[in-house]
Amino acid sequence: MSEKYTIGIDYGTDSVRSLIVNVATGEEVASAVYNYPRWKKGMYCNPAENRFRQHPKDYLEGLEYTVVEALKLAPEGVAENVVGISVDTTGSTPVPVDEKGVPLSLTGGFEENPNAMFVLWKDHTAVKEAEEINTLARKWDIDFTKFEGGIYSSEWFWAKILHVIRADAGVFRAAYSWVEHCDWIPAVLTGITNPKTLKRSRCAAGHKAMWHEAFEGLPSEKFLTALDPMLAGLRERLYKETWTCDVAAGNLTAEWAEKLGLSTDVVVGVGAFDAHLGAVGAEIEPYYLSKVMGTSTCDMLIAPMEEVGDKLVNGICGQVDGSIVPGMLGLEAGQSAFGDIYAWFKRMLEWPLDNILAETELVDEVTRRKLIDETSDKIIARLSEAAEKIPIEESGIVALDWMNGRRTPDANQNLKGAITGLSLGSDAPRIFRALVEATAFGSKAINDRFKDEGVRIDGVIALGGVAKKSPFVMQVVADVLNMPIKVARSEQACALGSAMAAAVASGVYSSTSEAQKHMGGGIETEYHPVTENAQKYKLIYQKYQKLGNFIEFQY
Amino acid sequence: MSEKYTIGIDYGTDSVRSLIVNVATGEEVASAVYNYPRWKKGMYCNPAENRFRQHPKDYLEGLEYTVVEALKLAPEGVAENVVGISVDTTGSTPVPVDEKGVPLSLTGGFEENPNAMFVLWKDHTAVKEAEEINTLARKWDIDFTKFEGGIYSSEWFWAKILHVIRADAGVFRAAYSWVEHCDWIPAVLTGITNPKTLKRSRCAAGHKAMWHEAFEGLPSEKFLTALDPMLAGLRERLYKETWTCDVAAGNLTAEWAEKLGLSTDVVVGVGAFDAHLGAVGAEIEPYYLSKVMGTSTCDMLIAPMEEVGDKLVNGICGQVDGSIVPGMLGLEAGQSAFGDIYAWFKRMLEWPLDNILAETELVDEVTRRKLIDETSDKIIARLSEAAEKIPIEESGIVALDWMNGRRTPDANQNLKGAITGLSLGSDAPRIFRALVEATAFGSKAINDRFKDEGVRIDGVIALGGVAKKSPFVMQVVADVLNMPIKVARSEQACALGSAMAAAVASGVYSSTSEAQKHMGGGIETEYHPVTENAQKYKLIYQKYQKLGNFIEFQY
Repeated sequence: MSEKYTIGIDYGTDSVRSLIVNVATGEEVASAVYNYPRWKKGMYCNPAENRFRQHPKDYLEGLEYTVVEALKLAPEGVAENVVGISVDTTGSTPVPVDEKGVPLSLTGGFEENPNAMFVLWKDHTAVKEAEEINTLARKWDIDFTKFEGGIYSSEWFWAKILHVIRADAGVFRAAYSWVEHCDWIPAVLTGITNPKTLKRSRCAAGHKAMWHEAFEGLPSEKFLTALDPMLAGLRERLYKETWTCDVAAGNLTAEWAEKLGLSTDVVVGVGAFDAHLGAVGAEIEPYYLSKVMGTSTCDMLIAPMEEVGDKLVNGICGQVDGSIVPGMLGLEAGQSAFGDIYAWFKRMLEWPLDNILAETELVDEVTRRKLIDETSDKIIARLSEAAEKIPIEESGIVALDWMNGRRTPDANQNLKGAITGLSLGSDAPRIFRALVEATAFGSKAINDRFKDEGVRIDGVIALGGVAKKSPFVMQVVADVLNMPIKVARSEQACALGSAMAAAVASGVYSSTSEAQKHMGGGIETEYHPVTENAQKYKLIYQKYQKLGNFIEFQY
Repeated sequence: MSEKYTIGIDYGTDSVRSLIVNVATGEEVASAVYNYPRWKKGMYCNPAENRFRQHPKDYLEGLEYTVVEALKLAPEGVAENVVGISVDTTGSTPVPVDEKGVPLSLTGGFEENPNAMFVLWKDHTAVKEAEEINTLARKWDIDFTKFEGGIYSSEWFWAKILHVIRADAGVFRAAYSWVEHCDWIPAVLTGITNPKTLKRSRCAAGHKAMWHEAFEGLPSEKFLTALDPMLAGLRERLYKETWTCDVAAGNLTAEWAEKLGLSTDVVVGVGAFDAHLGAVGAEIEPYYLSKVMGTSTCDMLIAPMEEVGDKLVNGICGQVDGSIVPGMLGLEAGQSAFGDIYAWFKRMLEWPLDNILAETELVDEVTRRKLIDETSDKIIARLSEAAEKIPIEESGIVALDWMNGRRTPDANQNLKGAITGLSLGSDAPRIFRALVEATAFGSKAINDRFKDEGVRIDGVIALGGVAKKSPFVMQVVADVLNMPIKVARSEQACALGSAMAAAVASGVYSSTSEAQKHMGGGIETEYHPVTENAQKYKLIYQKYQKLGNFIEFQY
């Protein structure tokens, strides 16, 4: 057997997946998933204050379980022919570590301390700290936020560090450095865990930590200590250089090789963010917006450096050389909530089920539970069916999709959503339709911003749960954008993208585009805009903009 | 047995009730209710286009049934001692009649024609005609709308007539005149049905038909024909004089005396609108806003003519001498939707029950129906319980209560409702609370308008379903208004008010206030504002006003 394989490991918000891919054909030969057990129980989190932390043990246990399990499921002979592993994770999801690069929550006395754990991407406890960073950045002679869209977010590296060390003196004293989740897993697998030498991902550094070549690395010590003297010295214990995902971080340690049933010849690639490697897996190409559509969206675009160069795109989430595809400028944007808005509406409609029906004595407990689950499971599908039949404009309802703040354009986590045009005839499907339209308008606002800033968009490649499962939503988005949308075939584009990255890092292919050519899954379906619908949405989009303008500036 | 009794007959939207009251003590000795059977089946209506019509047979059958039934339930000897009957109805609810005052739908060829029936108060088919009336009124030398708040509504007399005769040539040709529901019942009972001589109610004429002494009656023939030549001559076939509810319309005819089991000595009073006699029944007094709180609200205030005089209160629904209490200026305002907004939200939450659970095969049909009904019945109560526990300001949600347009201040049926400040944590109880607050803010906007126009409000007397059944809502309204609210004791204030009016019309008492003194039921409970809450609501009310301003003028 002369085939070669790579393993892509994709750490999502709720679970980790390992996928074994044939590098010659792209065949996905086996995969396994592991739900984080501590996270599932809600441990270390407090949704009421948007505190979301994850324990490193959830990650380590999932790493071992999914690789071993996927290899078990794979045909015989695959394990011996695995040549590379790459990892993608959520981000910015940093953790405080000791001098050896061990997360504090794996060291004595910090085992149950949420501040010693990974601060998950969607943790919003650092809203105040993000504001401080923005205020200082506006006054500073160099604008360190300029390659990150000009607005620093509470979801990002420095805001989170500052929040945690201020809140927890013990963690402040014990934390030698901080490491992103996507950098820590390769560090563990290769044994190169020293915070000053482990290979840091360009994508996390450039998009979330204000790292840029033009700054000679991270923001200056002066800037950081002006922000808070508590940050003094940290910059030196972080990093100057960063690496793209085509680079090898090292080889598997003997310990991990044994645990996983692989050889120490296996190359481990530099890590990256899930959305970025998802875009790679979905075969992103220059000037195509790769849109990961799930609970939120992450929108990525690549363009040759020589064409966009140093031109800044205002109000997006960053532009970093090589962050998505090595050799290309990677631009990132996104919507703070997308499918989450439909899920929110569903939860609202479930209220009578969970709070009244759940107590009925007309049927036994098992039947009760079944009735609730059966009803709940069908809500989104049935709403979509009903909403699809309502003509555009008929309801007069216009919604604003800022229920989780706004990420792009012009990040502002304090903004809120709205629903207008309500009458006594506004029923659940009509409101649902307006919410779907609002999320599509949010997408259009991002596309328009790219175009207004001089970056053309030739098409959209969609991936993620919503893209796969909601034809109604996808048609509305195509109509609103007035642009065809291709949906990538792979069911696990992020893991596939990681497997592609591993194929480059391990030397099977010389570039990402070559890996995509051999390993890509192609397009599953394409949505075409209906001209008449696009015309109608233009008018409603104007109302959406007017409403947004009022909510943001006058209310 | 020397006691005397009167019968108050209250025609509501869905049913008619007759109440027999001891005039000396106010004791409510018996009552009976009749649901309109044709209406209940949805006959002659089309909710999608807001067409709501009622058949005169529903009214006549209900009249006979409820009086006979109430008399059956009353102690022996009561029937012989009934001295008066008065009637209140919804309005403006006009019907086209022939020369003898017979509704066209009771004449050959029109029996099933909705245009030949009563056009119910909440019928909104005449939106266009109301706009025409307003446009012409703005240009005319005399502003005929000025005693009705300056804006004519699609719910009122002339708009409805114009809409129906334009839509239906047959009805146009056959209609000799038009009669309000509250005038037609006394006409039937007394046999005085000639449209030119039957006693027309001051309250319907003055609040809905632009009748005023200053105009020498209805708007001029010139104005009406300028509106539409089809109206030519109608003014002459309507009325010049109007009557307050302390006046007798006549005596029971022999036919109706026999049908009802009463004597022809029984005096029948001039009719009035339900809300107005409800205010009387709830013991309205000068400068107390009497607020009928149900699906919508009707807010009434009386003040001595000599104190308010000819001063116009801008943007309310009318001010008419004697319309509520004879001898006092009656001012009317109202909210287009109040409890209807809670019912709308409830319907939304019921969507999964009615559309998914209703199809389950896990339980049999009877259990399914029971489960749905049981859950549905508890929604408002359980939402109220949960909403009550949420601190003011906590959710950040602000709603606008214009889901059914806005009646007062400044009528505009085209306005729509809105909900802002939504986040992914905005659950059903939080939104419900914001909707309750919005209806309370709508109440405050009316109170403020009275005060801004120089009419003081000393207190609020509440009646109607919401006032009786929703302590949570009532406390929010008291806090928002920053004013104590008394809730009238009588469960059927409108019918009681009619019985009081009958006691005056039949000569038992010389004035409404004397009747109130003897027959009134007093106060059941009183809500006191909490100063701290009132302070907090001030700020949220400012947001409500800002939002309303945007929706009305900039959106």
